[in-house]
Amino acid sequence: MKNIAHILVNHEALIDFCIQILIQHGVLNADAEIVADVLVTADLRGIESHGVASLARYIDDIKKGIAIPKPHTKIIYETPVTLLLDGGAGLGHPNAHRAMLIAVEKAVQMGAGFVSVRNSNHFGIAGYYAMLALDRDCIGIALTNSISAVVPTFGVKAMLGTNPIALAAPTHHEQPFVLDMATSVVAAGRIGIYKQRNQSIPPNWSIDESANSITDSEYLSHLLLERKAGGLLPLGGLGENAGGHKGFGLGLMVETMCGILSGSAYADLLYPQANDGHALPSGIGQFFGAWKINCFRPEADFKDAMDDLLRRIRNSPKVPSKNRIYTPGEKEYEALEQRSQIGIPVPMPVIDKLRSLAEEVGVTFTI
Amino acid sequence: MKNIAHILVNHEALIDFCIQILIQHGVLNADAEIVADVLVTADLRGIESHGVASLARYIDDIKKGIAIPKPHTKIIYETPVTLLLDGGAGLGHPNAHRAMLIAVEKAVQMGAGFVSVRNSNHFGIAGYYAMLALDRDCIGIALTNSISAVVPTFGVKAMLGTNPIALAAPTHHEQPFVLDMATSVVAAGRIGIYKQRNQSIPPNWSIDESANSITDSEYLSHLLLERKAGGLLPLGGLGENAGGHKGFGLGLMVETMCGILSGSAYADLLYPQANDGHALPSGIGQFFGAWKINCFRPEADFKDAMDDLLRRIRNSPKVPSKNRIYTPGEKEYEALEQRSQIGIPVPMPVIDKLRSLAEEVGVTFTI
Repeated sequence: MKNIAHILVNHEALIDFCIQILIQHGVLNADAEIVADVLVTADLRGIESHGVASLARYIDDIKKGIAIPKPHTKIIYETPVTLLLDGGAGLGHPNAHRAMLIAVEKAVQMGAGFVSVRNSNHFGIAGYYAMLALDRDCIGIALTNSISAVVPTFGVKAMLGTNPIALAAPTHHEQPFVLDMATSVVAAGRIGIYKQRNQSIPPNWSIDESANSITDSEYLSHLLLERKAGGLLPLGGLGENAGGHKGFGLGLMVETMCGILSGSAYADLLYPQANDGHALPSGIGQFFGAWKINCFRPEADFKDAMDDLLRRIRNSPKVPSKNRIYTPGEKEYEALEQRSQIGIPVPMPVIDKLRSLAEEVGVTFTI
Repeated sequence: MKNIAHILVNHEALIDFCIQILIQHGVLNADAEIVADVLVTADLRGIESHGVASLARYIDDIKKGIAIPKPHTKIIYETPVTLLLDGGAGLGHPNAHRAMLIAVEKAVQMGAGFVSVRNSNHFGIAGYYAMLALDRDCIGIALTNSISAVVPTFGVKAMLGTNPIALAAPTHHEQPFVLDMATSVVAAGRIGIYKQRNQSIPPNWSIDESANSITDSEYLSHLLLERKAGGLLPLGGLGENAGGHKGFGLGLMVETMCGILSGSAYADLLYPQANDGHALPSGIGQFFGAWKINCFRPEADFKDAMDDLLRRIRNSPKVPSKNRIYTPGEKEYEALEQRSQIGIPVPMPVIDKLRSLAEEVGVTFTI
């Protein structure tokens, strides 16, 4: 947040504000609380690309009919270990929250539990849901497909979403291990932040329809919106030399577990339009799972070993220009600690967007 | 295999040869058959770094006491969905084969099944085990930790293995989806091939103790053997700009699911030595799992959707210099088809190694 004009906002005030806006758009109170908590948790953890800056996007999804504020969700099939949920085109956050809690409960009972969700929507940060396993002494996993933004290796049209992978594992004294990563070089939300700041993007993040690098963040944002040609590169970059085919493969793995296994939409079929150009529900598919640690070894031993693993890595020799090695989730826990105390730095353009959302529905803007 | 002197060898002859050598070193017949099949399958699929070129390495593991040819394996804990196996420091291939079959059987019965293995050894290609789920209409996953070879993001000492991820999913008309990838820029075995061919390696694959690029494949091989400083870069490369921290995070995810969950060794604690310098069992940990597809949606629908996903991706627009997009496993199935017919091209240095192995134990070398 260096050099960006911002206001420090208390996270509880921000949660309350989000809830009010969502309720005004027909979202049930309990669901609005979940959406607000996911968004503000992202901001608290320093993941601004997925925080309250996205609130307008979800409201827009509701207005366009992509997301239904009071969905009819339905359990399609259930076994003691698995469940398939139709999310009724509801907001992704309450669907994901419910699905993950079921997966964890099944894991606690049976050793492992998995919930596949079809007909859902964008759910914010994947890590939020994976972390719901931690208190129950489980390892949690959360996957989602997403709007096509990433080109295949040797391809120039965005065919896959940034399809994130999140895995959380509990620790003893250390902060939990929380991996939460797009399978592309960068998350799509990062491009929005570069555009907002009028910054160029590094040349190894994306390509246009002729496979040339893009450095203009505004142009790339335009291409990602159009979904006709060009897009982000998979993790590993262009071609196969540095493993771009692996990031591409991981994206397809997530697509398989989310879009295909659930019977939802996939690849460039997500976010379809009706013949008259109207948006239809996104068709996003998601996958949630948990493993109960003490079905494999005693929880206390697992947690101590996790502590030791993370410490060994952090204490290992560093490149000359760096004095620290960060393990996944560590930066986010430090941001959380600081921002819970001093507030969340919300950039002025985001403040303006939130004010517009408030004015539109007659909510008093007190932030 | 262009420009490399080689002999075309029938794969069945190669399997028989491997079995004979392994039996001479005390490996049980049934176990030798599994090891041989995994090695030759790697060669058939075009993954020479993990094929019969590695046979000497496993024999060496047996001689040094890293792998025990007739291990006492033990089921430590079992539930209908999970199992923890002590591999008795046996060869990784039979342990992994057994574990995966149990995981698949549990999945068929319960919807999902997971087997964690401690005290195992290097198991060859991870994809072999993931693929054991395909015939049972399951999705299969196989993970293993491995000898430290990869530096953390901002680190200069190899602290993690190349820790591969393999996932296989069935299809209808298309060849199955088989992702099998190291979480580093390249698999360690690739460096051995470059060294064998006296080739330089690309500068974005590895760093030395000062974080400088290494292009000398012999020097990098030396560093990987010494395990004191330098190593391969995680997928995404150096630093965080192109997502190196994501490859590093994936490596740690695999370490968590393999080394930590099983109660095995992890990170730089793998492949320990006794005080007198003797090698001890590697302490490798592994994780195998399967999900039964029709607990989520009908198998036929899943397979048709997989076909469509893979075709859509392959038929999407390509970079000007390429006329094909390969989905994971596609190149390998094409190699398999060709090599099953014409034979496996075994490079002369590998032929020489195999001849030495034969001479050492008095097996007639007929290849």
